[in-house]
Amino acid sequence: MDPFWEYFPPELKTIPPLEALERFVIFVLDKLGDCLPVVKFQMACFERYGPEGLRTLAKALLKAKELDILTILDGKRGDIASSASQYAQAYLEETAPFPADALTLNPYLGKDALEPFLPYLERGKGCFILVRTSNPSSGQVQDLICDGEPLYLKVGKLVHAWGEPFIGSSGYSSLGAVVGATFPQELVILRKELPHTLFLVPGYGAQGGSEEDVALAFDERGGGAIITSSRQILYAYLRKPFKGIEPLEAVKAAYFDALDKINNAKKERTKR
Amino acid sequence: MDPFWEYFPPELKTIPPLEALERFVIFVLDKLGDCLPVVKFQMACFERYGPEGLRTLAKALLKAKELDILTILDGKRGDIASSASQYAQAYLEETAPFPADALTLNPYLGKDALEPFLPYLERGKGCFILVRTSNPSSGQVQDLICDGEPLYLKVGKLVHAWGEPFIGSSGYSSLGAVVGATFPQELVILRKELPHTLFLVPGYGAQGGSEEDVALAFDERGGGAIITSSRQILYAYLRKPFKGIEPLEAVKAAYFDALDKINNAKKERTKR
Repeated sequence: MDPFWEYFPPELKTIPPLEALERFVIFVLDKLGDCLPVVKFQMACFERYGPEGLRTLAKALLKAKELDILTILDGKRGDIASSASQYAQAYLEETAPFPADALTLNPYLGKDALEPFLPYLERGKGCFILVRTSNPSSGQVQDLICDGEPLYLKVGKLVHAWGEPFIGSSGYSSLGAVVGATFPQELVILRKELPHTLFLVPGYGAQGGSEEDVALAFDERGGGAIITSSRQILYAYLRKPFKGIEPLEAVKAAYFDALDKINNAKKERTKR
Repeated sequence: MDPFWEYFPPELKTIPPLEALERFVIFVLDKLGDCLPVVKFQMACFERYGPEGLRTLAKALLKAKELDILTILDGKRGDIASSASQYAQAYLEETAPFPADALTLNPYLGKDALEPFLPYLERGKGCFILVRTSNPSSGQVQDLICDGEPLYLKVGKLVHAWGEPFIGSSGYSSLGAVVGATFPQELVILRKELPHTLFLVPGYGAQGGSEEDVALAFDERGGGAIITSSRQILYAYLRKPFKGIEPLEAVKAAYFDALDKINNAKKERTKR
């Protein structure tokens, strides 16, 4: 859920931007309510609208809960423990003003910056630590060779170790990793090295990751990955073959189209 | 400005938390309005209160502007370019809902994640990239040896290079670095290697950094560093020698006490 006003359907561009934001987000959730398992909200797109945009985010989180859709807040936060504890209260606490099921976090500060979030992992919440991001220059820092291996792999192994105490009955840990679909080689290495780590996989679609790429994020059981796709689905009405379809219908059609393509790519991969 | 309700003066604990937050923040700004050059807001402490807490942050930013205090939003954001552009609009744009003079950012995603902020550096805004953070486990990732030198130094050198086009008449770049006072050896190395980079230095006071430590952040001209101190000043009424003083008077007394001590340590260092 990356609501960019620039791509909103024309009829939403005639009303005030904040109202358009709320309508767009709620309409999309309603449209996908019966099929979508998880929604990831890009916090920047709400912060951009100020306090009122964040009020819309809070409403959307409640709406998702009502529709039984799990929620991931993608804010990539990372701060010293005293500040991190405030983020945990903002997003993971029972009475949180922005009640989410999971967060994305940045590993640059090391483990004590993650400590305040760990107790919540035992209460059904989740965290995904950035390991290998999907943007073009992610390698500039993440590919630096540290003690003989790239930084992303070092960080991946740390996340794997930190997550060990939080492995549930599924075999996966509540401490997951963000691994972009745009670097398939790295994805394969990480999938192999981090067997109990759930991957949150951005980069499919608008950023260039293909179905074949994201299929590499799944393990032999066919699990272990959550694929995210935002612009490609939300603004499907702008591109072939969905052009001309009513924008919300196009969202749903593009969602199922992506699902089919990913499932087919998974099957193809299993055959090999 | 790290408003933690737990440490608020007793009289503010009898009113609703949101009201207490706003009063505390505005009262402190008013109290220091005639002497404070810069204020750094810890975003987590406002997000923790939900949309209304963020409305207070927006008000506080305007209040600081009114009082001619420069503002740094400490949110340590870091995301792919499309999302980063939304953060830039939220915090640095002329019409931003949270209008700040500078932001803190995380380097883990590499340069393209910083690109959307760079045009603002030419319009009087600033960014501080995390290089060496002040928390105890910062070394877990930042001390990893990458191609023969620690990651923090590698990142520091990147920040230095990225900042080169934004050096102003002061001789410092608008692209600065966050370097904690809690690791004085690293601070000395970075001060030497990054001569045109302005340091934002957390960790003084409650986190353990001493005056002698923060003095190391300044260059030979006696400039190049902004020292931050939050809990030690904001909640001075809780500790000697400020116990018993009216809490806001204690803030002001602790502010000047810190200023004197840092200036003395700077002088001592110059003598040697």
